[in-house]
Amino acid sequence: MTEKKNVITAFGMSDIKDYDKLIKEFGVSPMTSLVRYMPDPIAVYRRGIVFAHRDFDMIIDAMEKQIPFVVMTGIKPSNFFHFGSKIVVDQLAYLQKHGGKVVFAVADVESLADNEMPLKEADAIARDNIMDCIALGLDPKKTEFYRQSEDLTVLRAAQVFASNVTNNMLKAIYGLHELKIYNAALVQMGDILKPQLENGKVRTVVPVGFDQDPHIRLVRDIAKKHKLVPPAGTYNKFMGSLTGSAKMSKREPEGLIFLNESAELACRKIKKKAFTGGRNTPEEQRQLGGQPDICKVYELYKFGLIEDDKELTELYKRCAGGKLMCGDCKNLACKKMTAFLNQHHKKRKQAALSVNRILKTKA
Amino acid sequence: MTEKKNVITAFGMSDIKDYDKLIKEFGVSPMTSLVRYMPDPIAVYRRGIVFAHRDFDMIIDAMEKQIPFVVMTGIKPSNFFHFGSKIVVDQLAYLQKHGGKVVFAVADVESLADNEMPLKEADAIARDNIMDCIALGLDPKKTEFYRQSEDLTVLRAAQVFASNVTNNMLKAIYGLHELKIYNAALVQMGDILKPQLENGKVRTVVPVGFDQDPHIRLVRDIAKKHKLVPPAGTYNKFMGSLTGSAKMSKREPEGLIFLNESAELACRKIKKKAFTGGRNTPEEQRQLGGQPDICKVYELYKFGLIEDDKELTELYKRCAGGKLMCGDCKNLACKKMTAFLNQHHKKRKQAALSVNRILKTKA
Repeated sequence: MTEKKNVITAFGMSDIKDYDKLIKEFGVSPMTSLVRYMPDPIAVYRRGIVFAHRDFDMIIDAMEKQIPFVVMTGIKPSNFFHFGSKIVVDQLAYLQKHGGKVVFAVADVESLADNEMPLKEADAIARDNIMDCIALGLDPKKTEFYRQSEDLTVLRAAQVFASNVTNNMLKAIYGLHELKIYNAALVQMGDILKPQLENGKVRTVVPVGFDQDPHIRLVRDIAKKHKLVPPAGTYNKFMGSLTGSAKMSKREPEGLIFLNESAELACRKIKKKAFTGGRNTPEEQRQLGGQPDICKVYELYKFGLIEDDKELTELYKRCAGGKLMCGDCKNLACKKMTAFLNQHHKKRKQAALSVNRILKTKA
Repeated sequence: MTEKKNVITAFGMSDIKDYDKLIKEFGVSPMTSLVRYMPDPIAVYRRGIVFAHRDFDMIIDAMEKQIPFVVMTGIKPSNFFHFGSKIVVDQLAYLQKHGGKVVFAVADVESLADNEMPLKEADAIARDNIMDCIALGLDPKKTEFYRQSEDLTVLRAAQVFASNVTNNMLKAIYGLHELKIYNAALVQMGDILKPQLENGKVRTVVPVGFDQDPHIRLVRDIAKKHKLVPPAGTYNKFMGSLTGSAKMSKREPEGLIFLNESAELACRKIKKKAFTGGRNTPEEQRQLGGQPDICKVYELYKFGLIEDDKELTELYKRCAGGKLMCGDCKNLACKKMTAFLNQHHKKRKQAALSVNRILKTKA
């Protein structure tokens, strides 16, 4: 019998079950031991959703000593944000609150290369994504927004970095792809190093999904070649689809709760589509208990629908102890999601005003 | 017996002997039939040095009807200009005089990719090249100069055009190369289409050596995809090395007369290095005649050292008729080259003043 190996590339990933194994295989460091040193860690850190890192120690050190640091993020404007997208924005807002300067790339070169989305069309989605970010707590006044397609530093860096890689390296890191895909990766290297290229060395952290680790490894190599500080990376788990499939992917619209959709629609998805792992009958459920670890509704709670750890633990126990039925639990999730979305949509409306300043519509 | 085939790629070429065959093989049009329609054609056109074209008819039409047109050139700042570089500048100055707007790219992304020359170092050579261009008659006031590495339109276009090509296409067109080399080609596509991307459709001509035809073919395809006017190309022959090897290449410093070197040094090269095809003895030369068609000194005359066609024909006849000895001919070439270089260096000095405005030294 062959052992199943985690297969991860930056352009798609397999179903990840065993994150501990991943940490070993990829030589990253587990996050658990670091969280205690963070000031007021938020749920995604406390709950192990951000589960691994490279060099994040230097960022904690910077927070503690009030040394300037940069938080770099590149959002590919290929689809609207969903509830799983929220965990990245939570991190941005947290790191910003603790002294990080957030630099936000609208990754429109990437959505062109990867999704064949024309630059102009990407803009509408980018604006929607940015509204979500602001509504979720990102302070636009302390954030630098730009489009990849309009940033000279980034586009030039992509050409310069092309001289730091060979076709064999790219193939080894990303697998065999068309030139445009490799180029989008090089542009992303430009994004991550832009703050240092423009203003000199600075500690930088890039909060990403684990599928982006190949980028982080390559950008760390390139940074060393250019005598810049190799950026830190933190890696979050992915929210699975409500239906039970592996990743709550923008490419699989089934089972996604979009942040710009109505509470009504979201509730219908929770009630009709969510896989819970509940037992066949109420009696059985009372006897054997529910299975929160494989339940997609519980995952919503864990990924942020319940803020308070005690409340979350309590709910977990009631479910596993057979005291909470799936129907009631779904009603609760629906209620919480409704409250969240209604509030979020109000904030989005306000945010819409600043988006026009941040990202002017293209002619 | 297999027939020797012309092997041409944009990154190096074989020894071209048979230009007529080339015209057939590559499906370009011969220039000869067009020259009569050009207003006051200069030597490089009259003498068949510019020997082939694609769509140049539309540029002649534009000159005649005073329709705006663009002359695009990208100079890779990897070495100083030599006497063979002059023929391209002659064309630029001619087309500019007849209504063309010259756009001049300092191809520093290409010299980085192709020659591993850092962007900053490329600048010193670019400034020297531009001094030569102005001294040779290019009007800087009517020319748009820019660096590839600093042009947003061009760098963005390179990323956009990456979506118009596949690895297989690139391999078929250019042969197998590292990504950086393909990218330099895509940046060059951006150069050529920049005027149209910024200001809408306009007829464009790109005067190049025949080794650049792969670029012209690809850029014409890309232009069609983006609903722009496919650029015309004109193709010039290459001046051979003084020593008799095929191309007067910047990569082979032997046998090159650089435009910034002293007349004394140039004369020494003409007298000591130039291959003439002269006969073994003066008697033999008088009997059999010289061989101007393979003579590198005659090539200097033909490529511009003698302006007047009658004078050139007269010299050709005297040589072929055995009336001109190689020593005397070399003395004449030296005298003419000295006059040219001395005059040129004076103009370069004046040009140096405008270069500082055109291309500021990088910090």
